[in-house]
Amino acid sequence: MATLLPPENPEDNPRVKAVFDDIRATRKTDFINNIWRYLAADADLLERTWNEIKAVMATPSDLDPLTKELIYLAVSIVNNCDYCVHSHSAAARAKGMTPAQHAEVLQIVALAAKTNVISNAMQLPVDPEFMLKED
Amino acid sequence: MATLLPPENPEDNPRVKAVFDDIRATRKTDFINNIWRYLAADADLLERTWNEIKAVMATPSDLDPLTKELIYLAVSIVNNCDYCVHSHSAAARAKGMTPAQHAEVLQIVALAAKTNVISNAMQLPVDPEFMLKED
Amino acid sequence: MATLLPPENPEDNPRVKAVFDDIRATRKTDFINNIWRYLAADADLLERTWNEIKAVMATPSDLDPLTKELIYLAVSIVNNCDYCVHSHSAAARAKGMTPAQHAEVLQIVALAAKTNVISNAMQLPVDPEFMLKED
Amino acid sequence: MATLLPPENPEDNPRVKAVFDDIRATRKTDFINNIWRYLAADADLLERTWNEIKAVMATPSDLDPLTKELIYLAVSIVNNCDYCVHSHSAAARAKGMTPAQHAEVLQIVALAAKTNVISNAMQLPVDPEFMLKED
Amino acid sequence: MATLLPPENPEDNPRVKAVFDDIRATRKTDFINNIWRYLAADADLLERTWNEIKAVMATPSDLDPLTKELIYLAVSIVNNCDYCVHSHSAAARAKGMTPAQHAEVLQIVALAAKTNVISNAMQLPVDPEFMLKED
Amino acid sequence: MATLLPPENPEDNPRVKAVFDDIRATRKTDFINNIWRYLAADADLLERTWNEIKAVMATPSDLDPLTKELIYLAVSIVNNCDYCVHSHSAAARAKGMTPAQHAEVLQIVALAAKTNVISNAMQLPVDPEFMLKED
Repeated sequence: MATLLPPENPEDNPRVKAVFDDIRATRKTDFINNIWRYLAADADLLERTWNEIKAVMATPSDLDPLTKELIYLAVSIVNNCDYCVHSHSAAARAKGMTPAQHAEVLQIVALAAKTNVISNAMQLPVDPEFMLKED
Repeated sequence: MATLLPPENPEDNPRVKAVFDDIRATRKTDFINNIWRYLAADADLLERTWNEIKAVMATPSDLDPLTKELIYLAVSIVNNCDYCVHSHSAAARAKGMTPAQHAEVLQIVALAAKTNVISNAMQLPVDPEFMLKED
Repeated sequence: MATLLPPENPEDNPRVKAVFDDIRATRKTDFINNIWRYLAADADLLERTWNEIKAVMATPSDLDPLTKELIYLAVSIVNNCDYCVHSHSAAARAKGMTPAQHAEVLQIVALAAKTNVISNAMQLPVDPEFMLKED
Repeated sequence: MATLLPPENPEDNPRVKAVFDDIRATRKTDFINNIWRYLAADADLLERTWNEIKAVMATPSDLDPLTKELIYLAVSIVNNCDYCVHSHSAAARAKGMTPAQHAEVLQIVALAAKTNVISNAMQLPVDPEFMLKED
Repeated sequence: MATLLPPENPEDNPRVKAVFDDIRATRKTDFINNIWRYLAADADLLERTWNEIKAVMATPSDLDPLTKELIYLAVSIVNNCDYCVHSHSAAARAKGMTPAQHAEVLQIVALAAKTNVISNAMQLPVDPEFMLKED
Repeated sequence: MATLLPPENPEDNPRVKAVFDDIRATRKTDFINNIWRYLAADADLLERTWNEIKAVMATPSDLDPLTKELIYLAVSIVNNCDYCVHSHSAAARAKGMTPAQHAEVLQIVALAAKTNVISNAMQLPVDPEFMLKED
């Protein structure tokens, strides 16, 4: 039902193989999920997407891995991406998200969706207190 | 420029005064920002919105306050709510978000927006591995 | 600040003049608001847009004019169109929307936004009871 | 295919049972649709969502029940929530929506979606005539 | 699973038959795809939608047919319309879109989605250089 | 009014200077627009965003530069990014977009927005004819 067909033997392409090898090494698993198998149809898009995912999500940084995953999940929910909601819910569980934390993410996303539309409906002026000040 | 006018003396309405008092007590500040001053036009909507914000965002829970605020900010960015992006950027800074963490939120939201549309464009089938299993 | 300039003397173009005349006659006012003055830059788009607005919104039908306007306003809020939220809030007031009804629209839009994201986050299966049955 | 599993015997939890009883009493039916059965996984979210639905949608107010349901349906269409489009189309039919009215909702939502993007594309300035004036 | 049932013998309605005949003649095929078979439930909506599609997409103009189809596909991806992503991917292939061009569309849509949210997150001021100047 | 402050002397940072030099060389202009001046606050995000823009938009490929820019503009309109609509309208004009082509983009985006919501509202099943077949 997809709009493009994944290549049958993607790792025959050495650029694809290099990305798949890096995915397996980075994630310490043999499982290559569908987005990578389909992106393999275009090595440029595959490389660029994986490199960005790896840099942003799989590299130690100022936010812990679960927080980053929950933000990713929240965005995927708002953008209503079926595949992404499934994959990032699974990823968040794998990184330790508890059912209670999952319910909290839903509560926050739902609350934000609500106050976002209320603010837009009222066309609220921004409080000067929220503005950044140059020194 | 708003689409409704905030009441001039909102605290003449005792239901509004009770909410404003609770906002001041909960947040330990005298500052009442615009969303509350405008919502004061409808006491039902004001009470319900504040009660939900307080329960979800201002009550100790399984996620720490900064993580919750970053999720709220991320959703507001995706929903493109000008007021909310300003107010929740300010709120996140007040809760300790560093410039590096702010940049990371932008990176994650941008990356998720990108993989969300790629997944939707390809109409990817969900991997069975991501499905929940009933016992 | 617009991304195209409205023509200076739009009614020099007889196709534009015909649309503007019809707007004035249909609405019984001399006021031509900005969307029409800017659309005048392209007579095709102007004619097609006005004809559709007139057919859908200004022709007696199975929904009363205020209900139709409230639906239009709700969609404009969700799509976060600043111009449209202002113009359709004003149009709804002109058609008799009371402050209490305005507040209700906000409540419904906010509630729907909330349950929409919750449903998408949970990826709920549709109940068979909601399906239409062929005879 | 959902991202969380509904509890098997939800009414073993007295808070869930109280909500389900209220749904049945309010709607005068034994049918509990999926959103409630899944939300039962988190009693807070279940209670808060139902209480808001009941207050906004199932309480007599300044808008009639069908108008409220059509606004809810319109928002669900724009937010592209599959579950919600199905459930609120069914709810609107149950409240008396005729096929002709259904077609009108589609026409209005489609027209609004169209003029919303045109307005955003042109970045239209808001007419001063649409602004609210303080006395 | 649709929310309305398509009429069983749509061409018994002469207005529907006229549109279907025009679709077959314009597209030089006997295939009537689902959107038209379902829209046949409301002749007004069917006629208006087809007339607009024909005028915008099937009439020689200042943009070539493939460019127009790629823009249509890009919008459908962003709006996350499953049916439309499938139908316009197929239509673009029929108009000559190569796999490399398909991959480029994905890259551009993904990149735009990314810079769109970054710009909104930063609430960037518009450069005066981008403004149109009146003579 | 932005949510982060651009660095005052961004080119003191050699990574920023290298990107700005590349922007000037690639675009053959001294003008650095706001998105780059603000992204300079985070060299990672600046480099990654510019490198992707350059690879996707400023490198000869299977789509001509104006077609790519029109797709970018269309996405920015749908995502309702004020900054992006302004900057990509200007960029498209610089790449030769005529007023007639600009009007066509608006017509296509508007038409797609309309059929997207109609399809979602009807929850249309995808025609088997649109599916890709594996050999």
